[in-house]
Amino acid sequence: MRNMWIYESLYPDIKIGLTGQLLYKTKTPFQDVRIYDTDRFGKLLLIDGAIQTTEKDEFIYHEMITHPVLLMHSNPKNILIIGGGDGGVLREVLKHNIKKVTLVEIDEEVINLSKKFFPTLSRGAFNDQRVNIVIQDGARFIRKTKETFDIVIIDSPDPVGAAKALFSKNFYIGISSALKENGIMIRQTGSTIVQDGVLKKNYKLLKAIFPYLAVEIAAIPTYIGGFFSFTIASKSINPHKVQYKTVLKMFENLDLKTKFYNPEIHFASMQLPNYVIEDLQ
Amino acid sequence: MRNMWIYESLYPDIKIGLTGQLLYKTKTPFQDVRIYDTDRFGKLLLIDGAIQTTEKDEFIYHEMITHPVLLMHSNPKNILIIGGGDGGVLREVLKHNIKKVTLVEIDEEVINLSKKFFPTLSRGAFNDQRVNIVIQDGARFIRKTKETFDIVIIDSPDPVGAAKALFSKNFYIGISSALKENGIMIRQTGSTIVQDGVLKKNYKLLKAIFPYLAVEIAAIPTYIGGFFSFTIASKSINPHKVQYKTVLKMFENLDLKTKFYNPEIHFASMQLPNYVIEDLQ
Repeated sequence: MRNMWIYESLYPDIKIGLTGQLLYKTKTPFQDVRIYDTDRFGKLLLIDGAIQTTEKDEFIYHEMITHPVLLMHSNPKNILIIGGGDGGVLREVLKHNIKKVTLVEIDEEVINLSKKFFPTLSRGAFNDQRVNIVIQDGARFIRKTKETFDIVIIDSPDPVGAAKALFSKNFYIGISSALKENGIMIRQTGSTIVQDGVLKKNYKLLKAIFPYLAVEIAAIPTYIGGFFSFTIASKSINPHKVQYKTVLKMFENLDLKTKFYNPEIHFASMQLPNYVIEDLQ
Repeated sequence: MRNMWIYESLYPDIKIGLTGQLLYKTKTPFQDVRIYDTDRFGKLLLIDGAIQTTEKDEFIYHEMITHPVLLMHSNPKNILIIGGGDGGVLREVLKHNIKKVTLVEIDEEVINLSKKFFPTLSRGAFNDQRVNIVIQDGARFIRKTKETFDIVIIDSPDPVGAAKALFSKNFYIGISSALKENGIMIRQTGSTIVQDGVLKKNYKLLKAIFPYLAVEIAAIPTYIGGFFSFTIASKSINPHKVQYKTVLKMFENLDLKTKFYNPEIHFASMQLPNYVIEDLQ
């Protein structure tokens, strides 16, 4: 069978197309989930028409949402992941010397399908003894939890539908309460060009709550729109003041075997082009 | 009239689509040229099915192919641009304290159409007294020229069709001869992911000729495939050894009014992710 063009439908005026075949589709109680096998990027997870991840380029997103914050913290032990049902962040977190990681995913079907169709994303991470899976809305989890965390990673889809509450002021106040005093949070804040409102809005919301912020950028091929952004926030750690040699030493001791991340990229990714700097002022 | 989807046809298995309308199309003796007005990125120049530039994101490419090399050189006076008929590189070069810039474009029609449809790219640069326009094949110009240059910027399309000779060993030997002893060249070497062969091949060709090389990366929204690359080569200047404070001082004195480039991004852009480092070994 000849492969067809698969298009993302996230934006009305720009899209990426990849050739491939549909492997599976379903409507869960929360979203429309489709899995394709693409010629260029291997298997592709599409949720509500938006590309979530592909086998070939997932390493960029998953390494950059995980290693910079874990290496900024001198001793991360208790980690919270909100979203991340595909298991990619979990896999990267488990490379660190941590005690416990809680993954809060609203849609159990995403975990089940990822285990089946994307085994290289989680690579058995869901079976690790240190992992606690909670099937719940992340915003609700944050309102209710009594636990505090060293690191919170918000690996959510874009601010539409079910994920909208994960981009709100109240949610960030909750995150602040759920972080230990020297805790650090990171979240994806979208493309700096085609979604520039997302970065700006969330940066401002976080700035009103956290004294220390940093924005990290990286290019992820299947996330269209140039530099993609992550925003980091902390009550006591200034990401820009962390020493290169400290990060390098931890990186070397852990032997992370990264395909994208290295300590040079760690600091380089927090240097922003003028159009982003101006957007955040 | 309802806007249509305009697709790039550079790759068989991945493409970008933008909504817009066709403004003009022609076949020159060298290539198929189409100009569109897009909803997201303003006017778009498509040559032989490949996106060359758009009004809204051209600043990233044009600033990053120009300012890093001009600011690495302590006193650039005589500049050569090969290609660049749209005038974007010319505009950025003329912001520097230079004496002369020669632009060698094979297709005069590209210059004429750019002046007409993309006035913000050249912003009158073609009329500047310091500019010398040569309508000629760049490879032929390099074989014949007796002039030597401080900076050579190769702003060519991808290595297909007319531009193929601009990615060859003999061409780079010619560039080396046309550079003064402390001269620097830069060229675009494509996407680090969807065109990884282009960067690797040209890096190796240049490495056999030039003792000092550096690769610079940036994300350009309408060039699909993640980090886009530029390769820098010099006979005597090591791009990694240039001092930050030297670049900062020149940058401030020139008042370049950049929208992407700043001295921090200058150095950050030369820090490469592991997958690129491994590709170049």
